[in-house]
Amino acid sequence: MHPAPEILRAGYAELVCTDLERSRWFYVDVLGLIVTEENDEAIYLKGFDEFLHHSLILRRGPVAALAKLAFRVCSPDDVDKAELYFRELGSDVRRLPAGTTRGIGDAVFVHDPLGYPVEYFFDAEHTERMHQQYHRMPSNRLTRLDHFNITVPDVPEGQKYYSDLGFRLSESIEDDEHVYAAWYFRKPTTHDLALTSGDGPRLHHIAFSAAEREQILNTADILGAYESEHLIERGPGRHGVTNAFYLYLRDPDGHRIELYTSDYYTGDPDSPVIRWDVSNPRRRSWWGHDIRASWYEESSLVLDLDGNVVPTRHQVASERAAAIGADGFGIPAGPE
Amino acid sequence: MHPAPEILRAGYAELVCTDLERSRWFYVDVLGLIVTEENDEAIYLKGFDEFLHHSLILRRGPVAALAKLAFRVCSPDDVDKAELYFRELGSDVRRLPAGTTRGIGDAVFVHDPLGYPVEYFFDAEHTERMHQQYHRMPSNRLTRLDHFNITVPDVPEGQKYYSDLGFRLSESIEDDEHVYAAWYFRKPTTHDLALTSGDGPRLHHIAFSAAEREQILNTADILGAYESEHLIERGPGRHGVTNAFYLYLRDPDGHRIELYTSDYYTGDPDSPVIRWDVSNPRRRSWWGHDIRASWYEESSLVLDLDGNVVPTRHQVASERAAAIGADGFGIPAGPE
Amino acid sequence: MHPAPEILRAGYAELVCTDLERSRWFYVDVLGLIVTEENDEAIYLKGFDEFLHHSLILRRGPVAALAKLAFRVCSPDDVDKAELYFRELGSDVRRLPAGTTRGIGDAVFVHDPLGYPVEYFFDAEHTERMHQQYHRMPSNRLTRLDHFNITVPDVPEGQKYYSDLGFRLSESIEDDEHVYAAWYFRKPTTHDLALTSGDGPRLHHIAFSAAEREQILNTADILGAYESEHLIERGPGRHGVTNAFYLYLRDPDGHRIELYTSDYYTGDPDSPVIRWDVSNPRRRSWWGHDIRASWYEESSLVLDLDGNVVPTRHQVASERAAAIGADGFGIPAGPE
Amino acid sequence: MHPAPEILRAGYAELVCTDLERSRWFYVDVLGLIVTEENDEAIYLKGFDEFLHHSLILRRGPVAALAKLAFRVCSPDDVDKAELYFRELGSDVRRLPAGTTRGIGDAVFVHDPLGYPVEYFFDAEHTERMHQQYHRMPSNRLTRLDHFNITVPDVPEGQKYYSDLGFRLSESIEDDEHVYAAWYFRKPTTHDLALTSGDGPRLHHIAFSAAEREQILNTADILGAYESEHLIERGPGRHGVTNAFYLYLRDPDGHRIELYTSDYYTGDPDSPVIRWDVSNPRRRSWWGHDIRASWYEESSLVLDLDGNVVPTRHQVASERAAAIGADGFGIPAGPE
Repeated sequence: MHPAPEILRAGYAELVCTDLERSRWFYVDVLGLIVTEENDEAIYLKGFDEFLHHSLILRRGPVAALAKLAFRVCSPDDVDKAELYFRELGSDVRRLPAGTTRGIGDAVFVHDPLGYPVEYFFDAEHTERMHQQYHRMPSNRLTRLDHFNITVPDVPEGQKYYSDLGFRLSESIEDDEHVYAAWYFRKPTTHDLALTSGDGPRLHHIAFSAAEREQILNTADILGAYESEHLIERGPGRHGVTNAFYLYLRDPDGHRIELYTSDYYTGDPDSPVIRWDVSNPRRRSWWGHDIRASWYEESSLVLDLDGNVVPTRHQVASERAAAIGADGFGIPAGPE
Repeated sequence: MHPAPEILRAGYAELVCTDLERSRWFYVDVLGLIVTEENDEAIYLKGFDEFLHHSLILRRGPVAALAKLAFRVCSPDDVDKAELYFRELGSDVRRLPAGTTRGIGDAVFVHDPLGYPVEYFFDAEHTERMHQQYHRMPSNRLTRLDHFNITVPDVPEGQKYYSDLGFRLSESIEDDEHVYAAWYFRKPTTHDLALTSGDGPRLHHIAFSAAEREQILNTADILGAYESEHLIERGPGRHGVTNAFYLYLRDPDGHRIELYTSDYYTGDPDSPVIRWDVSNPRRRSWWGHDIRASWYEESSLVLDLDGNVVPTRHQVASERAAAIGADGFGIPAGPE
Repeated sequence: MHPAPEILRAGYAELVCTDLERSRWFYVDVLGLIVTEENDEAIYLKGFDEFLHHSLILRRGPVAALAKLAFRVCSPDDVDKAELYFRELGSDVRRLPAGTTRGIGDAVFVHDPLGYPVEYFFDAEHTERMHQQYHRMPSNRLTRLDHFNITVPDVPEGQKYYSDLGFRLSESIEDDEHVYAAWYFRKPTTHDLALTSGDGPRLHHIAFSAAEREQILNTADILGAYESEHLIERGPGRHGVTNAFYLYLRDPDGHRIELYTSDYYTGDPDSPVIRWDVSNPRRRSWWGHDIRASWYEESSLVLDLDGNVVPTRHQVASERAAAIGADGFGIPAGPE
Repeated sequence: MHPAPEILRAGYAELVCTDLERSRWFYVDVLGLIVTEENDEAIYLKGFDEFLHHSLILRRGPVAALAKLAFRVCSPDDVDKAELYFRELGSDVRRLPAGTTRGIGDAVFVHDPLGYPVEYFFDAEHTERMHQQYHRMPSNRLTRLDHFNITVPDVPEGQKYYSDLGFRLSESIEDDEHVYAAWYFRKPTTHDLALTSGDGPRLHHIAFSAAEREQILNTADILGAYESEHLIERGPGRHGVTNAFYLYLRDPDGHRIELYTSDYYTGDPDSPVIRWDVSNPRRRSWWGHDIRASWYEESSLVLDLDGNVVPTRHQVASERAAAIGADGFGIPAGPE
């Protein structure tokens, strides 16, 4: 059996957007991400602490979808290891020469066993880390990409896959019968990749970090000032799981973005895993907030390596159904 | 016609609580208010900036209710003026000798034309202003009482009454037919007293100020840590009206407390009045949050001067009904 | 004796700047004040909560100096009262027709007994209050003008003058022999006008308010990013007096600007006055910071009504000399 | 040559304190660290995010000094590797059976080539991670130990030693002739261990992390409230190096503690190293603050494995002398 590549961290994501100008408004004017490069077809974005070429690509396209998740691996050798590892798994695997994606070197692109289009790369063009350019920072500055959250029909299946890839578990939501969600990390925070139960493969959200709660509050205020408060789906709030202070937004195509701060260091090998019972209302909302049905039920389509939408399977176990009566005062309405 | 007394600001409130020990936990352990005096029957509380004896009295009693709102007037003479003014209005008026209420001097207690038990006082015992006792401040420290919000069946009737008393309007929620809510002030902030449409006379809430948003966020975190997040009814959020950053809590008896920061100076005579249309979703929730039905529909009973519950009248115009489709994604459920 | 005009609050200041482009960088690019109007000779500025035409005028001129302090009075009648009051005092008094200053109505301009050029006005052009335009706010947004601090050779002389004008004392720095500084207010904060002992008449500083400490910290970060940290003279820090969280800057001409937050409500007639002993190191610096000699010794020249520099008198009593050993670890160097 | 042990992160420090009651006031009442265990001779402390038994031990003793720095290694095997590695280097090496230090398992204690008493351990007793016990957190809560900063006479000598141990460089202060300071890390922040030029071996400071700037500001306010602002040596401020927002305190024995937040992720193998010129005033103080001589000149004695004070060597190159004119307005006074 070929060994798994050693993965460093969540690297970047590529989203297909149907109205690139409108998306630019959202990611640049509202969120304040830095444009490192752009043309008629794509915009490359990053936060103020990042030194790689980009953390997010917005690409013009006919159907809003996730085109790619990318993990950075620890060395060029790990790109080779990734190729062998996924070929052995029987995945659709393509070697992408340096420059296939602007700013990214030699890479392996995989339609992984969970159905996601995932790239593994090490070499990347550097850009200036702008973490001290305070005169250019908006009031809601974001620091860096933090994690991906994907919607999978069978969470234990996803857990086995990511454990095999060398990810470590930080927290989970469970009951005696099911695991509803699980948080996995490579860099020593609570996660680089979270698994949420739902029809999938789908992308639940991409999260960017902020340094403090205030920057996240400022983003909410900015959206109100643009009369676009309907793009705020949930929060600001506090998760029990991960302890994150969060804000969930929907971009103009409905892609969900989380702004995120205040989780904790998990780097010790024996860092305690926290298991939350699905009946604990504080697991998702430390402040007892009602959770809109859309947050549990809607997520972005994902594409295969040829750009075709991947069909989804129905989820095995619904956290939302299991949690009735736990999440705030809310009773779920609508189909499960 | 006798002139109205010159009112300085919202002074204090007295709430009847059915389980004083549980209420003490809420106001002292959770909110961190300072106890200036207490005995088996009552607890006297204030924030860290206050120098009067108290801003809130919790009194043990059989039925949870508002026992008193108190405005501080500008001089001892204004207490006399209040007596004449309300006698002329035909209200039930009682002169309370100094010390009738601990820490409060000579006062006039009135069952006012809107049905509320309201005291007017000037003389009061001083206590130490503890605004620099940082070593005794909890992470969610409150500075002072900010305002009262009362639920009245007919807002224009309440507006005339408070205008005659010398209050000034800062903001309102209206449409072509009705005024649904109005904010009135004496001290130069957006309000000392707000009128909200609803069955009344009832108390909607009492608000305490915090210096910054962080202290309000910390209160929400503390309630989760006590596994009492169900006492968070709404927020943290941003109001369009008044620009306040807010958190609404329900105390163990259901009395509603708002934690409040970041409104603006209104002291100039020509300070612009802001009129919000009831269809503007940002008027109550700048971030588009759903508003729980309880926030519109539930409020505290009020007592007359003899301690009997004052019967309520049904509201003339419901903001909640008028705003269907405006407040977040929410559709009101339950009776109006 | 003619009665004093009833003063509302600190209204605006006019500073002469020798390099208007460089000053624009400081006040607009660094501090983020809003330009309401500008031309080759002058720039009119305000904060995000202000609805009057301006709170600060920068005017091009050959000698850096204070050209005017302006107090807003409570009514048009008070402008007339100001004229009579100052004529009786024997001051140089000029009636300025509406529009003499852009955005300001009928006014009285006085070379007051303390030697300062002070305008009293009520009528003023309104501009939009931008307190909810969060999408246009920089990370260090300022809300409004808060106060003026003037350097007077004889503080008790200044105290009598401002008491007669109807200002109220909030705090002072004293010892058995001298009063070294005193804080006076009309709006119910700790001050609209502070008197600091020093050679005078001179302007010590003008202060703008921020909503929270974070915005003031962000200004310091921004100045470092511009490699202009030498414009930070003192702070961020906490004053014992007024409890303010502060940052003192020097503009390109050396005019001193304070950014200021977190003082307290003083509107009650019996609000306690706090007297600090000059030997208490926390009076000026709650955190024990050393205070640079320049902060005590340097201040802006002031002009008379004809634009000539007003000669200064030497101070009677030096706080800095009296406080040796109290202010941090610092020993004053240089002449007193 | 034996391979170096794989080090995980800064683990804990042990300080000798001459008045344990007074030290307890400082670390518990002021800083709000959690006591996990204490007796007449020692107090064991940690922050709210930590799950090991302690991050700091205060031990009663006759001479204030550093008794131990401890690094956690990645596995029990690395403890064996450490023993072999340091024996080969010729250091004084002692194997400490589990429980020799309360809460710490099998360990190796070394008098390292730089002269410091350093322990390497993996096994440790777990305590509850209290990161969500918001109801027990003071306003200035600390999360975890962040790093050690040691004063060495020859920085390049220290650099070679820590590079060989597998630490990575994040930033440095240099000129053409000398390296004055260098920051080294194992966990992916800017440092676990910093080297500062000075007479040594000495301990410059131990740093604890806070989540946000506000908690650090609150600590400064608390010290003023205790009339102990003289324990604030420097800050709050912003470092250019590491981008940290900092506050330096001196404990009752003069041991220096840094409170620290807002550095950045350094985990990528090609994370850019930032080299600051010693003439850049923003390297140490982004806000141009004067730096007290004590901050450069004073540091804690260190003990050998038998508890004897280790003699110090004079520094090769003084950053403070090299930086004259760069650090704020300050001119160093006193001997170099």
